[in-house]
Amino acid sequence: MQAFCAAIDWGTTSFRIWLMAEDGSVVSERRSNEGMTIAAETGFQTVLDTHMRALDAPQTLPVVICGMAGSRQGWQEARYLTVPSPLADIAAKAVRVNGPSRDIRILPGLARRETARPDVIRGEETQLLGAFSGSHASGLACMPGTHSKWVKVSNRSVTDFSTYMTGELFSLIARRSILRHAVGDADNCDPESGDFLQAVADAHANPSDLSRLLFSIRGGQLLYGREVTSSFERLSGLLIGSEVGAALSMQETREPIMLIASGKLAALYKSAFLSLGREIVMIDADEAVQRGLYYGARHFWPGTDTQADYG
Amino acid sequence: MQAFCAAIDWGTTSFRIWLMAEDGSVVSERRSNEGMTIAAETGFQTVLDTHMRALDAPQTLPVVICGMAGSRQGWQEARYLTVPSPLADIAAKAVRVNGPSRDIRILPGLARRETARPDVIRGEETQLLGAFSGSHASGLACMPGTHSKWVKVSNRSVTDFSTYMTGELFSLIARRSILRHAVGDADNCDPESGDFLQAVADAHANPSDLSRLLFSIRGGQLLYGREVTSSFERLSGLLIGSEVGAALSMQETREPIMLIASGKLAALYKSAFLSLGREIVMIDADEAVQRGLYYGARHFWPGTDTQADYG
Repeated sequence: MQAFCAAIDWGTTSFRIWLMAEDGSVVSERRSNEGMTIAAETGFQTVLDTHMRALDAPQTLPVVICGMAGSRQGWQEARYLTVPSPLADIAAKAVRVNGPSRDIRILPGLARRETARPDVIRGEETQLLGAFSGSHASGLACMPGTHSKWVKVSNRSVTDFSTYMTGELFSLIARRSILRHAVGDADNCDPESGDFLQAVADAHANPSDLSRLLFSIRGGQLLYGREVTSSFERLSGLLIGSEVGAALSMQETREPIMLIASGKLAALYKSAFLSLGREIVMIDADEAVQRGLYYGARHFWPGTDTQADYG
Repeated sequence: MQAFCAAIDWGTTSFRIWLMAEDGSVVSERRSNEGMTIAAETGFQTVLDTHMRALDAPQTLPVVICGMAGSRQGWQEARYLTVPSPLADIAAKAVRVNGPSRDIRILPGLARRETARPDVIRGEETQLLGAFSGSHASGLACMPGTHSKWVKVSNRSVTDFSTYMTGELFSLIARRSILRHAVGDADNCDPESGDFLQAVADAHANPSDLSRLLFSIRGGQLLYGREVTSSFERLSGLLIGSEVGAALSMQETREPIMLIASGKLAALYKSAFLSLGREIVMIDADEAVQRGLYYGARHFWPGTDTQADYG
């Protein structure tokens, strides 16, 4: 199939590119570790050209990008849109990269401009654009990750969002805190394990108790010889349970949660939500970002096909 | 004044020794970084002998030790006492180091043996022994640090305690997380600063919101150009406010809090408690550990002076 555009998710430490046909299907793809950190050294243009050549992409093929390439330290700044903001503005307010003859657009992130709790999103907004481009127009989205995002969407507008540092805290605590002795070299958490689910329940019941519950992993190692896998699963469960407990305590309704995730994190959060008796709608994060980028591409370069169903 | 004993607080990364007269006053002292980590390599006996010679201590002077030297990875294990436990047992159940002709005693730590939340103390129990050897027989003690301890004491018995990983989380987040960009090279927190006190109030009001409030420091940097000192003070305030909020939410009474601390941490926690309208009793942690070690010494080697007033 002929490529209609190239779509790129350009994060801090990862780079993913897809060539897409006019109907949004993926023709070919590449991945590398040339995220913003490396590309800022190598040059964003150089990294892009290398991958475009490797994919045999035509010189004139246009490119749509989301993620950290649009940050102030990135290729060219695509300023945050202030929430509340219609998702459609993510495409409408994209910037075109100055210089290259090729048409390259970068999608902006979202900002919560409130001095008591300022917050930012860059990258996940494009997943939201994709996730809410079909039958879903409203909902509470949970997007787990290094910095988990919880986002309220109403009539295809982002009305509010919050960031929880769950994934980053997990890495720091598991690998660099005193608890590293308890988790040892364990690196896999079974989403159905009793230790994981008990920890989710414990922290969800009292998310403010996180710091004390974390240290109980040390106590479990010293007093009861708790195994490393068990400690690892408990650590994972405590952090996820605490995030979910804190985030849900701010919701009035028990509407299903839209879980936008992939891989291991999708399995862990799914298991956590189900064990807490919460309904979820699973949305694959990789597919969502592809759909979001495609939505942008169709906005910039309207083709002959029918537009995505979007407000 | 003639030395009656040597008293040592032997932590993971620090070593402090005092020669004490028969009335408990300090005759001379030394400090070094030869904590358990280094002493386990060099040899505990070697480290002790070096400092005793440097202090011109007699060959027969007895030694009382608290802290990590009594852990399983230390010099000789002094097994945890299970709470509830009378503080007097810390002296009564000390172990004598096998081998040396010199009389060397190591005080045990405390354990909370409950599978739902096991916890341990090693070192702070001796501060408690000192803090509760005078006019105070009961109270809620806050002992801030890398691993802050909150301890309930009733009639000179420890009835319960909890550990919060506040200091360790602070170091990891300030120096290794994404927030390191926001705090930069700032390393001083003014206990009276508006940023510190506002953060204490924010996190105390909703300790479960910690992870989200932490990320707002990133938002403040990106959206409002918040200064590094301001971010550092806010980070410190959020972690202390969250600890205090979580710990106090489990208390029924508004009794004064016994703040056992020294130096910068004493000033920060004092300011935090006062701003929250809580009464405190300040107890210097260094003096408390000296008094606790002295209490042990008088138990092992009763002299001619009056015993400390203790149950």
